[in-house]
Amino acid sequence: MREVAIVGAAETRFGKSELSYRELAVEAARGALEDAGAEPGQVEALFLGSYSPGTFVHQEHVAPLIASELGLSHIPSTRVENACASGATAFVSGMMAIAAGLYDVVLVVGAEKMTSTPVAETTRILAEAADWENESKVGLTFPGAFALMAQAYLHKYGYGREILDAVAIKNHANALANPYAQFHKAITAEDIANSPMVADPLTLYDCSPISDGAAAILLVAGDAARNFAKPAVRVLGFGQASDSLALYRRPDLTTLPAARQAAQRAYRMAGVSPRDISLAEVHDCFTIAEIIATEDLGFFEPGEGGEAARAGATSRDGQIPVNPSGGLKAKGHPVGATGVGQLVEATFQLRGEAGGRQIDGVELALTHNVGGSGATCVVTILGRAA
Amino acid sequence: MREVAIVGAAETRFGKSELSYRELAVEAARGALEDAGAEPGQVEALFLGSYSPGTFVHQEHVAPLIASELGLSHIPSTRVENACASGATAFVSGMMAIAAGLYDVVLVVGAEKMTSTPVAETTRILAEAADWENESKVGLTFPGAFALMAQAYLHKYGYGREILDAVAIKNHANALANPYAQFHKAITAEDIANSPMVADPLTLYDCSPISDGAAAILLVAGDAARNFAKPAVRVLGFGQASDSLALYRRPDLTTLPAARQAAQRAYRMAGVSPRDISLAEVHDCFTIAEIIATEDLGFFEPGEGGEAARAGATSRDGQIPVNPSGGLKAKGHPVGATGVGQLVEATFQLRGEAGGRQIDGVELALTHNVGGSGATCVVTILGRAA
Repeated sequence: MREVAIVGAAETRFGKSELSYRELAVEAARGALEDAGAEPGQVEALFLGSYSPGTFVHQEHVAPLIASELGLSHIPSTRVENACASGATAFVSGMMAIAAGLYDVVLVVGAEKMTSTPVAETTRILAEAADWENESKVGLTFPGAFALMAQAYLHKYGYGREILDAVAIKNHANALANPYAQFHKAITAEDIANSPMVADPLTLYDCSPISDGAAAILLVAGDAARNFAKPAVRVLGFGQASDSLALYRRPDLTTLPAARQAAQRAYRMAGVSPRDISLAEVHDCFTIAEIIATEDLGFFEPGEGGEAARAGATSRDGQIPVNPSGGLKAKGHPVGATGVGQLVEATFQLRGEAGGRQIDGVELALTHNVGGSGATCVVTILGRAA
Repeated sequence: MREVAIVGAAETRFGKSELSYRELAVEAARGALEDAGAEPGQVEALFLGSYSPGTFVHQEHVAPLIASELGLSHIPSTRVENACASGATAFVSGMMAIAAGLYDVVLVVGAEKMTSTPVAETTRILAEAADWENESKVGLTFPGAFALMAQAYLHKYGYGREILDAVAIKNHANALANPYAQFHKAITAEDIANSPMVADPLTLYDCSPISDGAAAILLVAGDAARNFAKPAVRVLGFGQASDSLALYRRPDLTTLPAARQAAQRAYRMAGVSPRDISLAEVHDCFTIAEIIATEDLGFFEPGEGGEAARAGATSRDGQIPVNPSGGLKAKGHPVGATGVGQLVEATFQLRGEAGGRQIDGVELALTHNVGGSGATCVVTILGRAA
């Protein structure tokens, strides 16, 4: 396949924003172009990942809207939706467009504006990413779905909730060094113990927040990468896989088969193995999801992810730093932006531009973006410019 | 670019259906596989065009849902949304995936379930494909937007509404021979004169209906095409372009620049010109849109499309048959399905399988799928197997 590189990356701060949907997307997109030293006129196609702008802000058909706001009126522009994996799926679309030889310069944007919607309605809108007819309509919203996974995991492997605490505490600590993060607030096990229960065993601090935000990357054909201002980050591999939306059809709630398949495809394309990865940005929409992710990605054996989290193996100075950005948990989770935001963070880390959250000696970074309760997963592997 | 062919095609009947969203999509997808003599297990990726299943039927994340219902759980599956051009945009995504060399066999589905929503709400949902903040929120829904285009066109070129009548009468007549069409009802100029005004000059019979429906095609790499049951239809060219959602930003309401750009790209890729086209399925969401389309596609000069419609140049036996299927006007317009349905009709025509609506000697067929009031346009050119 044709080589592709990331030459520009930017994101808005995640959290409650005064900016509108289109203002957020435009800020991130312009940031990525500026980062690359590129002019808007160089962009040949736009892919926009967004989950549900129609319900959140009454605006569908967002891809040409954002292209037009950027002054890119006539380029092909396409919105991609795969629930909370919309961002990384838009990235895959951009990869395919360049690999097909159609374009050399493609802008990938992820955006969501969630905080202008009443919270109860937001919970319903998010639940439409699960199987509405069979599960969410009768009350299984996402906190419940991931609580079932947490119960299954804790029961199967004999853990207490201290492994969940470890993820929340670590990610809140990591976010302290991330200026783009929604929360800058260290938390303790006592804070978690005193926080409201959402869906047993998941408390408020086990859940990622409702957020506004946008992120963007500029993708270019490998041979064009040298024409831009920043060192190119190489896309070495990616994998996408799907699964049933409905949990009742899954034989095992302690793993996401789509994540395993996506990871296998990404590792195979990149020709690397889990032990080669320097850091991972994973989809911790709930704390349990990060633990399961570290197993699905092959960093730990089934059942060992909980102990690894507890023992600090996923902290900044651990065996495999996971979510140095703070993750969805503390960086925030504007759903359509999240997958692109992970790629932005990986790009900053690979360039050595991650400031106070920089991990030393990053050679390979992995991102893991999940839609729904695992019906979509996209894994990417990025490497430093040779 | 790698050659791609259509080897399977199917659609549900358009109109008010008792089937659910997922049942419609599955019926069309299974139909396309059966048509090709393919097994579900041969499909390597799914692209699903759908406009707003979240608001219409409370179900987002529809791509893995449909993949799963088809027993294709772990293949990559992606929803694409570009308003009423979602279907053709999904086709473009499928083309890119094969051209990139990632897959050899890709299923493209378009689906929408609209009739279970109250009509006033449907008008609002559709208006979210226009610029909500600046136009639709204050009342410019699509009948109004296309009425402005019609007024501009009639005024600029000095026509009366008989040119609109000609489109509606022709497309209703064509649909009589289409078993998949929503309406099997011939109409007269008198029927139109007696019908309710929707947005001056557009009456009820100038507007495409609200519909349920789904359509699917099986795309394969050119060298794999001989392994399937039906003659391959070759994809010779395609083009996609965007424009401002807001009408107030358009300098001229009598043409869609995105359609002109998409057509130019498709003609260039195919190496053909408008006069080579045997028939066209165009996006007549309103009668005026068909007239403008025939000019944007280069069949007629600006201002001559109205006279061509009046004189029968676009009828079944005219210079360039337009919408032999009945078009959106009479075949129906389940928005996400429409663009894929156009490709299904073109495939049937190129294979000589269009029954009572077959056009003689079809060598090249063109499809033209528009999103919103022209902020997205996708044009494709298909040819008979060599």
